[in-house]
Amino acid sequence: MFDPAAYDRLKSRFARIATLSEAGAMLGWDAAALMPPGGAAARGDQLAVLAGVAHALVTAPEVADDLHAAGTPEDPWEAANLRLMRRDHARATALPADLVEAEARANSACEKIWREARAASDFAQVAPSLKTVLGLVRERAAALSERLKLSPYDALMDSYQPGMLTADVQALFDRYEQFLAAALPRVEERQRKSPPPIRLSGNFPADTQEKLCRSLAARAGLDFNHARLDRSLHPFCSGTPSDVRITMRYDETDPVQSMMAVLHETGHALYERGLPPAWSRQPVGAASGMAAHESQSLILEMQACRSDPFLGWLSTELVAAFKGAGPAWAPSNLARLWRRVERGFIRVDADEMTYPAHVIMRFRLERAMVAGDLAVEDLPGAWAEELNRLLGISPPDDARGCLQDIHWYEGMFGYFPAYTLGAMAAAQLMAAARAVVPELDRALAKGELAPLTNWLHTHVHAHGSRLDFNDLLTEATGRKLDPAAFEAHLSSRYLS
Amino acid sequence: MFDPAAYDRLKSRFARIATLSEAGAMLGWDAAALMPPGGAAARGDQLAVLAGVAHALVTAPEVADDLHAAGTPEDPWEAANLRLMRRDHARATALPADLVEAEARANSACEKIWREARAASDFAQVAPSLKTVLGLVRERAAALSERLKLSPYDALMDSYQPGMLTADVQALFDRYEQFLAAALPRVEERQRKSPPPIRLSGNFPADTQEKLCRSLAARAGLDFNHARLDRSLHPFCSGTPSDVRITMRYDETDPVQSMMAVLHETGHALYERGLPPAWSRQPVGAASGMAAHESQSLILEMQACRSDPFLGWLSTELVAAFKGAGPAWAPSNLARLWRRVERGFIRVDADEMTYPAHVIMRFRLERAMVAGDLAVEDLPGAWAEELNRLLGISPPDDARGCLQDIHWYEGMFGYFPAYTLGAMAAAQLMAAARAVVPELDRALAKGELAPLTNWLHTHVHAHGSRLDFNDLLTEATGRKLDPAAFEAHLSSRYLS
Repeated sequence: MFDPAAYDRLKSRFARIATLSEAGAMLGWDAAALMPPGGAAARGDQLAVLAGVAHALVTAPEVADDLHAAGTPEDPWEAANLRLMRRDHARATALPADLVEAEARANSACEKIWREARAASDFAQVAPSLKTVLGLVRERAAALSERLKLSPYDALMDSYQPGMLTADVQALFDRYEQFLAAALPRVEERQRKSPPPIRLSGNFPADTQEKLCRSLAARAGLDFNHARLDRSLHPFCSGTPSDVRITMRYDETDPVQSMMAVLHETGHALYERGLPPAWSRQPVGAASGMAAHESQSLILEMQACRSDPFLGWLSTELVAAFKGAGPAWAPSNLARLWRRVERGFIRVDADEMTYPAHVIMRFRLERAMVAGDLAVEDLPGAWAEELNRLLGISPPDDARGCLQDIHWYEGMFGYFPAYTLGAMAAAQLMAAARAVVPELDRALAKGELAPLTNWLHTHVHAHGSRLDFNDLLTEATGRKLDPAAFEAHLSSRYLS
Repeated sequence: MFDPAAYDRLKSRFARIATLSEAGAMLGWDAAALMPPGGAAARGDQLAVLAGVAHALVTAPEVADDLHAAGTPEDPWEAANLRLMRRDHARATALPADLVEAEARANSACEKIWREARAASDFAQVAPSLKTVLGLVRERAAALSERLKLSPYDALMDSYQPGMLTADVQALFDRYEQFLAAALPRVEERQRKSPPPIRLSGNFPADTQEKLCRSLAARAGLDFNHARLDRSLHPFCSGTPSDVRITMRYDETDPVQSMMAVLHETGHALYERGLPPAWSRQPVGAASGMAAHESQSLILEMQACRSDPFLGWLSTELVAAFKGAGPAWAPSNLARLWRRVERGFIRVDADEMTYPAHVIMRFRLERAMVAGDLAVEDLPGAWAEELNRLLGISPPDDARGCLQDIHWYEGMFGYFPAYTLGAMAAAQLMAAARAVVPELDRALAKGELAPLTNWLHTHVHAHGSRLDFNDLLTEATGRKLDPAAFEAHLSSRYLS
């Protein structure tokens, strides 16, 4: 049974909701990229009202009727679209409006205090606010858990990467822990035997870096008729499929970081740009979750652009742009700078091998917090213990410990796993692409990314959310998420 | 009778509406200032959905009940607020939703064609679209006319400057026509007898001009913690009271224009910044119409900053910024450049004396179009005739004739009078301020605007929309809009 009239009403409604969410995305970009500080309070209200209007549109009584009446379309895209509408509706109606509001207020208050606490490197300052945030997150998790028949933590994780369950993630992460414990000392041993990388010295004007970043993004296929590149405190990619906004930050003492950062954000941007236009503003037309998104940034940044062939090409670009000369500018040294493995305190600065350790510890800690097994005041101690267990180091202070990431302080619990699931998926997709696109590495050696991005377009971007994460990987690579490709990639890059 | 509960419900609702409109303002700014062209279609949808949601909030059935139940508050601010809510509601419910939508579509289509037609200087290209737009405008005017008991044209004008009627405007404009007919030849005669202004020659980098503009805006009291200055094709001021966005354009062959343009936009910005915070997001907390707004930009640009004392100060700033030397940089020549009266084709380039002629002819033409007395295809001829009658010149082509302004092509009929009403009000306010703030001109000679802007804050900005245009002027100056001050100002500046 399928009722096209009911389904069409739903499509219009969800298109309006998505359009409001586009407006919110642009306003969020503006807030991060260029809003004067005095505009913050009003902007918070604007986003809250937009969210409230969208929530009211999803939860309106007639939606339940139409979702029921619509039945089951035959077309697989329409069937998937309706399934995702039902999912959105179930999630939205599971939460009482006053909880949604209380969370918005608490998260925004906590985030503000977190900024000060981080600057002062003093967790105690923000602990009471984090307690409030966590209390509300647990309420949300409980409400979603009941509705979705998932465990509370899974119900949270499901909002970022639908379909992934704790048990699967736990198994993947346990295996990676073992891999890392064996591989990391060996990589470090190899690095010790190689010449240490020489840091570039000099001044590298932000404008020159920006020009290079823009040309890299364009070369990767980003159409600046539908995109902007601006600056902000932390690089990110936001906006809408027809108007993607990337922001970057430039360290004038080091041009090495920004090249990779822009390729990372371009990977996100290409995913948004490549979503199926026929399903624009429909749930099925959106990206298939945050792990899928991260796979697209990491396949560009880590898999393709940190590969030997591409780094060879990129080195000459960098040398030309900055007229670099001397041993620090030798391609072999640049490659060592771009691919240094190091046990560090900061997740966002981590190399691809130790990065999962940062994610694994957060996954354990946030699960314990959501379960009520770890009290907020015990977080710094638990953090130190986990970091020590996984990487054998201890954070020197709270700022480089449990205050470093914004996520928990704005109520995002269950997000972290997506980073590492994405890294694993990126390796798996890259292996699959290499197997069927023979010219891929030859193209990379000429700085050409089209053979890869075309394959990604067909096998990932163009699917929207029709398939969930594991089904997407199965169609593209022949199997669901399998960490073997990621381990093989790391072994090959760092141990062979 | 006053029902505070009903009134409070209305206040919450109108605050939400205003917050949505803030979101729209920021997205509109983004579209004009920096959006990549490929984002235009999606942006149009975002703005349309926001407008649709706001319209639904004003026209919801419970609003009529609450407006009725609320009765009459004793507090004059609350009484004014409720009056304005009733006005918004009457206007919104007068228009059928399908007319609002049809206008949005037609205006957006016509505006696009207008851009091409203007580039090609070919009115015929856009005439059919303008016909559609005008047809819908006339429908809107008829619907509003019936509801508001105003003539159709007055009902349109009322949406930009409430309270002004055709009869009043006609009388003011007739008088100005006579003044201009007598004064303009005399001014031209005097100019012929003075040395002609020497254009500055050289290259004046946009960055240097921007720095100077920023410091002028700050000096006039604009707090950049709550404001930005960016670039766009046409200068404008937009944003929200806590986050004002000014855009400018810089002609690198001429730094004279941008100084005045930024002071103009800063006048608008200070009005928004100075609105009463206690009534933020309430109808009574908004600016009191477009003529009032224009009075604030023009009192800064034309009255204060083109005055002898201020130009004296500004000349030295300009000379210092560009290291100018030679007779072109003499303060007397700069003043001649900044105060040149000339019969021209382009409204936005016009001096303050001939500017009203451009407005008067548009007022006549748009009234005739709305009344059905002037057909779209006859517009170029009527334009030439009117321009010739008022300024004795004929437009050399459509681009410099009836294609020069965007207003009609995006459905704005009834807006033009606000420019000249604002200019007249600015002169009247300046005369009143001078009378009670003795240090005003001495301060201008030092580049200090605070004595003027403080007075404006108290007598204009802080009133929000509590008073309509003429009542505002009466409280501030002792009488309603009276063109005598404007004529006296022009005579004194250009004829004495």
